[in-house]
Amino acid sequence: MAIAPTSRFHGVIPPVVTPRTSDGAVDVSSLERVTKHLLDGGVNGLFVLGSSAEVPYLTNDERAVVVRTIAGVNAGQVPLIVGANEQTTNRVIEEGRRMVDLGADALVVTSQYYAISDVNETETHFRSVHAALNVPIFAYDVPVRTHYKLPLNLLVQLGRDGVIAGVKDSSGDDVAFRQLLIASRDIPNFDIFTGHEVVVDGALLGRAQGVVPGLGNVDPAGYARLYSSAVAGDFASAAREQDRITDVFNIVYAATPGRVSAGAAGLGAFKTALMLMGVIDTNVMSAPLLALNSSETAAIKVILERNGLL
Amino acid sequence: MAIAPTSRFHGVIPPVVTPRTSDGAVDVSSLERVTKHLLDGGVNGLFVLGSSAEVPYLTNDERAVVVRTIAGVNAGQVPLIVGANEQTTNRVIEEGRRMVDLGADALVVTSQYYAISDVNETETHFRSVHAALNVPIFAYDVPVRTHYKLPLNLLVQLGRDGVIAGVKDSSGDDVAFRQLLIASRDIPNFDIFTGHEVVVDGALLGRAQGVVPGLGNVDPAGYARLYSSAVAGDFASAAREQDRITDVFNIVYAATPGRVSAGAAGLGAFKTALMLMGVIDTNVMSAPLLALNSSETAAIKVILERNGLL
Amino acid sequence: MAIAPTSRFHGVIPPVVTPRTSDGAVDVSSLERVTKHLLDGGVNGLFVLGSSAEVPYLTNDERAVVVRTIAGVNAGQVPLIVGANEQTTNRVIEEGRRMVDLGADALVVTSQYYAISDVNETETHFRSVHAALNVPIFAYDVPVRTHYKLPLNLLVQLGRDGVIAGVKDSSGDDVAFRQLLIASRDIPNFDIFTGHEVVVDGALLGRAQGVVPGLGNVDPAGYARLYSSAVAGDFASAAREQDRITDVFNIVYAATPGRVSAGAAGLGAFKTALMLMGVIDTNVMSAPLLALNSSETAAIKVILERNGLL
Amino acid sequence: MAIAPTSRFHGVIPPVVTPRTSDGAVDVSSLERVTKHLLDGGVNGLFVLGSSAEVPYLTNDERAVVVRTIAGVNAGQVPLIVGANEQTTNRVIEEGRRMVDLGADALVVTSQYYAISDVNETETHFRSVHAALNVPIFAYDVPVRTHYKLPLNLLVQLGRDGVIAGVKDSSGDDVAFRQLLIASRDIPNFDIFTGHEVVVDGALLGRAQGVVPGLGNVDPAGYARLYSSAVAGDFASAAREQDRITDVFNIVYAATPGRVSAGAAGLGAFKTALMLMGVIDTNVMSAPLLALNSSETAAIKVILERNGLL
Repeated sequence: MAIAPTSRFHGVIPPVVTPRTSDGAVDVSSLERVTKHLLDGGVNGLFVLGSSAEVPYLTNDERAVVVRTIAGVNAGQVPLIVGANEQTTNRVIEEGRRMVDLGADALVVTSQYYAISDVNETETHFRSVHAALNVPIFAYDVPVRTHYKLPLNLLVQLGRDGVIAGVKDSSGDDVAFRQLLIASRDIPNFDIFTGHEVVVDGALLGRAQGVVPGLGNVDPAGYARLYSSAVAGDFASAAREQDRITDVFNIVYAATPGRVSAGAAGLGAFKTALMLMGVIDTNVMSAPLLALNSSETAAIKVILERNGLL
Repeated sequence: MAIAPTSRFHGVIPPVVTPRTSDGAVDVSSLERVTKHLLDGGVNGLFVLGSSAEVPYLTNDERAVVVRTIAGVNAGQVPLIVGANEQTTNRVIEEGRRMVDLGADALVVTSQYYAISDVNETETHFRSVHAALNVPIFAYDVPVRTHYKLPLNLLVQLGRDGVIAGVKDSSGDDVAFRQLLIASRDIPNFDIFTGHEVVVDGALLGRAQGVVPGLGNVDPAGYARLYSSAVAGDFASAAREQDRITDVFNIVYAATPGRVSAGAAGLGAFKTALMLMGVIDTNVMSAPLLALNSSETAAIKVILERNGLL
Repeated sequence: MAIAPTSRFHGVIPPVVTPRTSDGAVDVSSLERVTKHLLDGGVNGLFVLGSSAEVPYLTNDERAVVVRTIAGVNAGQVPLIVGANEQTTNRVIEEGRRMVDLGADALVVTSQYYAISDVNETETHFRSVHAALNVPIFAYDVPVRTHYKLPLNLLVQLGRDGVIAGVKDSSGDDVAFRQLLIASRDIPNFDIFTGHEVVVDGALLGRAQGVVPGLGNVDPAGYARLYSSAVAGDFASAAREQDRITDVFNIVYAATPGRVSAGAAGLGAFKTALMLMGVIDTNVMSAPLLALNSSETAAIKVILERNGLL
Repeated sequence: MAIAPTSRFHGVIPPVVTPRTSDGAVDVSSLERVTKHLLDGGVNGLFVLGSSAEVPYLTNDERAVVVRTIAGVNAGQVPLIVGANEQTTNRVIEEGRRMVDLGADALVVTSQYYAISDVNETETHFRSVHAALNVPIFAYDVPVRTHYKLPLNLLVQLGRDGVIAGVKDSSGDDVAFRQLLIASRDIPNFDIFTGHEVVVDGALLGRAQGVVPGLGNVDPAGYARLYSSAVAGDFASAAREQDRITDVFNIVYAATPGRVSAGAAGLGAFKTALMLMGVIDTNVMSAPLLALNSSETAAIKVILERNGLL
């Protein structure tokens, strides 16, 4: 029953946050320290330019700085899976080519957004991106942002046809996730990751190959322990670790409701925790997102302390 | 890590289907046989008048027939948790009183629907129903029908205050489900059930007290095995059983897309399987739902056969 | 271009509110006064047991009291169009039969709710209700409550087949509304009403036969003037009246955001205005809805005064 | 009651489609002919790089070609209102600056998308874009794409503060649209456009300053007549013209359901009509959108012929 991590892409693959300086620029040295913190925590890969990186808010120049910085620190230690975040096919292809040139080992591609698509256009979209770019592509299922759930049958077919190398699932639909795991079990080197912070133990029980938790920025070692327990078939330990991590996840509820958006509350909490831990210099967010304030920071400090992270 | 089923309400609690005769009446003798089939399968409780019972489609007289029939066969062997399905507080209270008189050991109550409510009205709703009725109440979280997700904090508070005895979760939000399990762990006799058919192993890994699967009508013994494995802490076996059950669940996709509604496809599949297994006489649905046809029935037969259920 | 109100059902048809006494009972004498107030205001019909009547919150006994009271005051002066509000076909038929017995001249029927339906089931639903009840039926398109938009083509077909006598549109989709008006123009005695308070002038410009505004409880004479102007082809006057009424409609925003639900804010505002105007005794709402408080009442008073309604 | 078009931005302002050659490139000469066709039809402005231009599908280079081409034909005859379509603030500013350099007289800016925002971030977004760019900005309210409805109070405040010069409303919420028209009536040079094809007569009755109909590509003269009638206060004639145009709009339903997406069906119909009218060479769509096929084209031909457009 143990997971067999034979694929190149597996395990704990946190989506790296993008630290900013107090005047709002990408903070390269803090980003270097986050990357080192994650590698030291025992992660198996890095997801670059994901939602946790505030990728929608980064200009194209900033995106390039982020990829170059992380690639420099990583120096080939673990695979870099990089988001090619654009709204439609041809724009994704342009962005994906740029990311490959910057050092991506694989790309993460969503369905089209802002555009209003159907399943046929979505299929063509992934096939066209694959045909244009010579690199493994992970389909990113994130309906809370794209407002489109990637259908199970489409994902299985794209996997079977070698169009996609796997799926990063942030759909929140764990039934479909398990059905996908079962339906694609015979596709070689097809890797499925959950984007959850919580119920990662259940995802691994269903034989997911990896996890891409934003909270992994804060507690990479916790997720590494959870993953190791699951690989060893010790799910009772995995569940205990998951329960502890679920308490750490309460940092995302520290923001005063209504003061900042839900997005800023979550990503802001990760940055604030990293600041408290001395990994990055500020908890500044990309404009127009507001940073957490001092009382919210104090609430996060309490949660980190009771979980042994400070 | 094993689950400790100390509560009266726990384990496998299938939502009993409502068989109909070929002329559309409630088929009492088939319903008696389904009830016996479930008890023989080793279930720990029966959920009466749930969505799988087609409760929205039953007239009040039909609802009474259903409860009386199941209570008669059960004769106190397992607890009867009965849906008090009405749109607003005072109507729920009238319906709940009726169900208690008919033999309910506990009630299942949703938030208000058709009405457009907020969290305060929802809280008052549950408190008023509890105050009016002297019976354990399970909050039923089913946003696909009510279009309202019961908030985690409200559920915990209602549990702590003794207003609700537990939660039946059909929200599909497994992160919130795990958070609820953790946040309510210290509330005595507070029982949380998942409404999933799939990922029940993960729910039990997180220490859910029970499962209310519509598919449990078809394969009660399978769910009983899954539950037993989890109680014993053998999650590898639970996951293997879950994988097998997930294939059985494919019967809900047997209907020709567009010919019947998604609701009729799922519930119709359970009835069709029970008909093929000789438990009930017809797969007739409540009007205006269409029954599955012969080719759809044939597809279900194949799935049941390959899973040893025929 | 003037509207030709040749049908029995046309013009201003307010959905009558349900006053309650301070201890929460249906306030029969206040309800009698509201009914008289509307008839005196020059309305062309009464919509009984609509959303503005808080129909989802009324027990069946209360619904009967409401219909009997209004029918008694009306004494046949204008048509009574009565809501048969239940979740599925057979339950609607039972409720509709009861309403006809109580004096309904026509029924208003929604698509099924809580149930999850498709277009075929919805069609069967309306055809079954029509076949069972010998009375004109208006389809009530209210997706904010049913979570299903009645398709244009279905409404036209049901009209052509004599299944429905018209449509009460609260969909908010004014493009589909205009398309329905045009597509059904050749169906004899097919009457289409807008449920809007605002843009009623535009609806009448497109030749809607009537309007069912909750705000018509407060200002029936204003809507009667708007309708008369439109019938006379004087749309400039209709638009001026609409602009004035749109300011009266601001009473629904008087409630402190978050203190009461949006539903309670709107319906509570109508009741509060009627209380201030001396038509009804209290602004008490059906439990668990909260009534507007004194400061919210004061805000409504200002709006009524500046519009000459106090 | 007549509309007083004193502002620079008013009247019929069609969103210009982007013709493509049979090999998928932007078809510059066809685009020149569309532009001329619109100017000849009597339009009062041109909306460049809107949804009807397939803007989400255009690469940045293609966007530049489109703006340059239209600006070249227009040569200052009517104002060019250009979409600065990007997902977040700083990316919008970069894109907006580029569009101003290419000749935009005003910009159209949506709320942030893919990003998950709240009202405060949305306010900062518009204020930041305004502060960075010295050009009139129209807020584009298009929740079907952005999944966020711009709140009435925010729009009024941004108008009062000179941050936005107006609103292009494609929200489909005609009640909020009328409330916005009334609430902003005293703001000088604040121009509100409806994105509707249908119920434009009602929008003008409520004193909208302009209309941005995709169908205006096909029938600019029809919309010019509708607008002229409304400006003259002859709403009966405006409604008759609207009824006729509503039949022309049926071209968007010509596509076989399921064969192409809803987006491709609508925009593809406009292109197919223009092709049939000899204005553009092909009805090729941006990849991965499919073009309408020959039988769908034949259906459109019938509709155009019966409305005198062929």
